[in-house]
Amino acid sequence: MQIVIIGSGNVAYHLAKAFVLNNIPLAQIFGRNEKDLEKIAAELHIPYSTEKLEDADLYIICVSDNSVQNVSAMITKKDSLVAHTSGSLPKELLAGEYRKASFYPLQTFSKSKDLTYKKIPFFIETETEKDKEILFKLASKISDHVMESSHDKRKYIHLTAVFACNFVNHLFSKAKEISDSQEIPFDYFLPLIDETVQKIHEIEPRLAQTGPAVRNDVRVLELHEQLLKDESLEIYKVMNHSIKKMYGL
Amino acid sequence: MQIVIIGSGNVAYHLAKAFVLNNIPLAQIFGRNEKDLEKIAAELHIPYSTEKLEDADLYIICVSDNSVQNVSAMITKKDSLVAHTSGSLPKELLAGEYRKASFYPLQTFSKSKDLTYKKIPFFIETETEKDKEILFKLASKISDHVMESSHDKRKYIHLTAVFACNFVNHLFSKAKEISDSQEIPFDYFLPLIDETVQKIHEIEPRLAQTGPAVRNDVRVLELHEQLLKDESLEIYKVMNHSIKKMYGL
Repeated sequence: MQIVIIGSGNVAYHLAKAFVLNNIPLAQIFGRNEKDLEKIAAELHIPYSTEKLEDADLYIICVSDNSVQNVSAMITKKDSLVAHTSGSLPKELLAGEYRKASFYPLQTFSKSKDLTYKKIPFFIETETEKDKEILFKLASKISDHVMESSHDKRKYIHLTAVFACNFVNHLFSKAKEISDSQEIPFDYFLPLIDETVQKIHEIEPRLAQTGPAVRNDVRVLELHEQLLKDESLEIYKVMNHSIKKMYGL
Repeated sequence: MQIVIIGSGNVAYHLAKAFVLNNIPLAQIFGRNEKDLEKIAAELHIPYSTEKLEDADLYIICVSDNSVQNVSAMITKKDSLVAHTSGSLPKELLAGEYRKASFYPLQTFSKSKDLTYKKIPFFIETETEKDKEILFKLASKISDHVMESSHDKRKYIHLTAVFACNFVNHLFSKAKEISDSQEIPFDYFLPLIDETVQKIHEIEPRLAQTGPAVRNDVRVLELHEQLLKDESLEIYKVMNHSIKKMYGL
């Protein structure tokens, strides 16, 4: 099977790398950013192009949501399977006369960070059973967790990930802002953060909640509000309100 | 040195355990909740009481912030050192004629969860150099990270921890609420969560931000808002607003 990956960002890089590491040959990595493509192609020893899209059996589109449709319109090979990797787009958005699919890896990708691909859940949606089989077989070579998922379910998976990953990372940024402002090394907080996450591998997050809001410690909550302003204060208030609501306080 | 721990909650339990595991004998664990005390005392082989506070050189108060002052007033031994373990209280709040101190372990404690005590930062504040030495020596037997910290700094450490731990855990709870509502196993998200945290050991959180808000992906943001309501929607809006602000979007 000839496979082409389209894109040169974090998802394209890691997906290409996962394929190569699992001895799945890639016919091409295609995109607009020559500098990024060249770097990926050199590291993974795969052909790349910014101009001519190779003929393939499977195209995997790894570009930002906004560009998926335009990029998908460039694929003209009718007997091909085309999959996007977006958590929030329907497969029907793909603009061409080919078989359409979604191939969604649930992970946060940064180029500079190695990943254990085996643990990444892949959510697959296809038009036919046969295509499902093709993508399941492929994804199973990379990951131990391959599942089917409708577009509707995928939207909620993506939304859950925004809370559990994107927002969590932003809280780390805000936390670092506070500790930086007092010249407290953020490294001090890493054991606490590690433990916070370790905990929910063993205990339901609802049962693991600690802190002033769940204790309804009004004195501390008021003290903290005096130390904060702007977005940090807004976050502080909304999070505490939500915690109190969850525990009926 | 005779040491007494006062309290029977998560902090009392883990601190007592850390002492015992490091061969620091405890003269007593004292508190109100006989059932909890009995359990801790039996596991760690230390005497306990709900009635008579033992004479000691050092009392470590591990009760909720609201109770610290009342509990501290029970200690009448003048030539003793009394430390509270609160992140937000001044040592001067301790109500008695003894030497006052703060002994603040930066960690989230749950009874049912084992901990690596060596990595927990301890923040210490005392009235005299001599007391500082006593508490540094003691804490260093438990942990590799013992530091001095004024009350003012400790308030910010605690506040940072609320963002990096308490609020992060609440986001996990909210994320699980969403995935539960669609019968998507929350376990699917654990590799993503682990990676989110692993990342900030290597990359600054500000540089690790991903997701629709930092991409200013208006379509996805609007789609997600339609899927949410109540506190989840409030959190969604406030977090995205703060992310956009941080990245000048």
